[in-house]
Amino acid sequence: MALPVSPLAPKTIVELPIISGVRFAGIEAGIRYKNRRDLMLMQFCEGSVMAGVFTKSLTRSAPVLHCQNILGKEGDQGFAILANSGNSNAFTGKAGERAVDDCIQALGEKIGLNPSAIHMASTGVIGELLPSDRVIMGLDPLISALDESGASDAARAIMTTDTFPKTAYLIFDLEGVKITISGFAKGSGMIAPDMATMLGFLATDAKISQSLLQKALNVTTEISFNAVSVDSDMSTSDSVYFGATCRADMAMIESETDPRFAKFKDALQDIMINLAHQITRDGEGARKFVTIEITGAVSDKSAKKIAMAVANSPLIKTAIAGEDPNWGRMVMAVGKAGEPADRDLLKIWIGDHLVAENGAVSPEYNEPIAAKHMKGEEVTITMDIGLGDGKFTAWTCDLTARYIEINADYRS
Amino acid sequence: MALPVSPLAPKTIVELPIISGVRFAGIEAGIRYKNRRDLMLMQFCEGSVMAGVFTKSLTRSAPVLHCQNILGKEGDQGFAILANSGNSNAFTGKAGERAVDDCIQALGEKIGLNPSAIHMASTGVIGELLPSDRVIMGLDPLISALDESGASDAARAIMTTDTFPKTAYLIFDLEGVKITISGFAKGSGMIAPDMATMLGFLATDAKISQSLLQKALNVTTEISFNAVSVDSDMSTSDSVYFGATCRADMAMIESETDPRFAKFKDALQDIMINLAHQITRDGEGARKFVTIEITGAVSDKSAKKIAMAVANSPLIKTAIAGEDPNWGRMVMAVGKAGEPADRDLLKIWIGDHLVAENGAVSPEYNEPIAAKHMKGEEVTITMDIGLGDGKFTAWTCDLTARYIEINADYRS
Repeated sequence: MALPVSPLAPKTIVELPIISGVRFAGIEAGIRYKNRRDLMLMQFCEGSVMAGVFTKSLTRSAPVLHCQNILGKEGDQGFAILANSGNSNAFTGKAGERAVDDCIQALGEKIGLNPSAIHMASTGVIGELLPSDRVIMGLDPLISALDESGASDAARAIMTTDTFPKTAYLIFDLEGVKITISGFAKGSGMIAPDMATMLGFLATDAKISQSLLQKALNVTTEISFNAVSVDSDMSTSDSVYFGATCRADMAMIESETDPRFAKFKDALQDIMINLAHQITRDGEGARKFVTIEITGAVSDKSAKKIAMAVANSPLIKTAIAGEDPNWGRMVMAVGKAGEPADRDLLKIWIGDHLVAENGAVSPEYNEPIAAKHMKGEEVTITMDIGLGDGKFTAWTCDLTARYIEINADYRS
Repeated sequence: MALPVSPLAPKTIVELPIISGVRFAGIEAGIRYKNRRDLMLMQFCEGSVMAGVFTKSLTRSAPVLHCQNILGKEGDQGFAILANSGNSNAFTGKAGERAVDDCIQALGEKIGLNPSAIHMASTGVIGELLPSDRVIMGLDPLISALDESGASDAARAIMTTDTFPKTAYLIFDLEGVKITISGFAKGSGMIAPDMATMLGFLATDAKISQSLLQKALNVTTEISFNAVSVDSDMSTSDSVYFGATCRADMAMIESETDPRFAKFKDALQDIMINLAHQITRDGEGARKFVTIEITGAVSDKSAKKIAMAVANSPLIKTAIAGEDPNWGRMVMAVGKAGEPADRDLLKIWIGDHLVAENGAVSPEYNEPIAAKHMKGEEVTITMDIGLGDGKFTAWTCDLTARYIEINADYRS
């Protein structure tokens, strides 16, 4: 488990600012391993509202099913999010669902919240029943540790194969009111062995309606967490939680046309993309951070399909690992995406060097220039489809032999 | 280029029988490398009919576009298929299309065939113009070498990163008439670096209408070449060609309800699946041959989507490489396929050992038994979705560090 920190990790781990009305704790409960924080609690004050997005997997975990059931029914008394690492409680049948109920019931009694006001997230091994007794044993010390400055402990308690905690925040002006959005996440992409799962936890003091908080989260998830791929696998537990305390001294944002909503969404987007990038940078075996920019597709949706076909292509990701400006594989990926494309209109750049146009290699293509770009830690591939205004940017990492080693050897 | 022969290769390379009316040649034309056969010709006699299936890639190669244009317009004078390795003539623009025309024009003049009776297939590097002069220089020796017993040379001339030639045939009785179907193929899955591409060439002496020949090819392609995955990438050049000389002494098969059609299709299916398996066994870096059997899906189409989600999952393929009976990843793959599934109805077997049922690990699950099966060279994963009668079988190989080495280092 003692994986070396990714070479693409940020130089500094950002400490998160206090958001009045949100308390955090992260402790060692011995869920699976000793001597590491593995139980996390976030508690939001009375009057807070909650948004969430969850994996579309049809085999999603018991805690995800629970959260989907209660989302929007938390009530006015505030709410809590309990999370553990070491065990995802996925594919654990009815017993897994009872384990969630037991944990939530126990926590609810201790902090005076209705079970429908307590979310739960679990990440770790699939198919083993959550040891709910250990979670419940940990609740008293966990509640005692709750503190407005406890976000760092919380961010560490959700790590599994992550080699660094992922944190981001923004303090910005919303028509004269200082607003904070902060968040932390875990995941080595969608790929961490057994312990797959991307989890994100965000908080803000903005005063915003639940429906608009949800809307902002939905829209920004599409272009952040849903725009990265380490491999092409989807977790049974992926979830993002976003609570707003509504404590800021401002009028409630209640309309999509309120100009503050757009600003709020932009700030959220920055944080979500920042966290998504950190997840990609912690991709197993990753040595290069890759940006894929698609323009000129028939729609944004079409552009996204093409971008993800490129981001998910093992042939492109191994070429990047080999620092090979292998644009033929990029043409292949556009072709396989199944979206409208025309060989003769397609343009491809590696870095800012044009490599392909008019259905063939560019007359100005110079392989050493493209190869030089590939040698860097950050690689950018740009493709213009030449058919419309649709655009999308996706991020991925290279596919190295280290990925195979980690994933083939993990349980053996 | 001197890759060691895959450990999963068949012990014996099958020599193909003569089919009266089909002549083959394979020679060295120096398209890209010296001292290897790289130019192939198949000529079918007068009265033959032709079927073909081609990649759905939107960036398909110039020769594929040509073949799609002429398919069904070959006429009665017989037809030829010219193929080269070393260069795929894909993404080579208008110049690439002219190169195809030049080769076909020259060959047509030499063997007295209309250009619309000459197919062409190219496999190799993408994005470099086909050196048509070398192809044309090779035509005289190629035509001189044409022989009914030349299939072995032809099968070798289409190899790129293949570590062994892939051949299969069946001689069977069709209501008292002895019929032969034979074929050869190339491809290390859809993945061979730069030189992606699966090509298949089949011939028979059966007397069958063009539309039924095409129908038989379409149906069997879906459950053979379209049921294997080495990685998830699709080539710009994948093509399968199937010619019938119609020389067998039998009444023409002209109706789908003719009982001989079903028998013919079954024989074709055996050969196609045999060749598809050989391609999978030559998957880059492959150490294990994996069968994925899905039953109980809501439809065959749904079963295929689930099977291919499993076959394309890097997490499952690395687990297999690591001989790890990691059924949690299999649950994940069913979940991400997006097809109807119910956690509590899903059953999973590794080999014939039941590992998961009722939404959780099976009470009888015994990890050493499952692990023992994973140590073999042939691994079978069976999943019953529990919802209907839909079924599909797919084949893949494990994903090893060797795959990354081959693909990352290929051009550098």
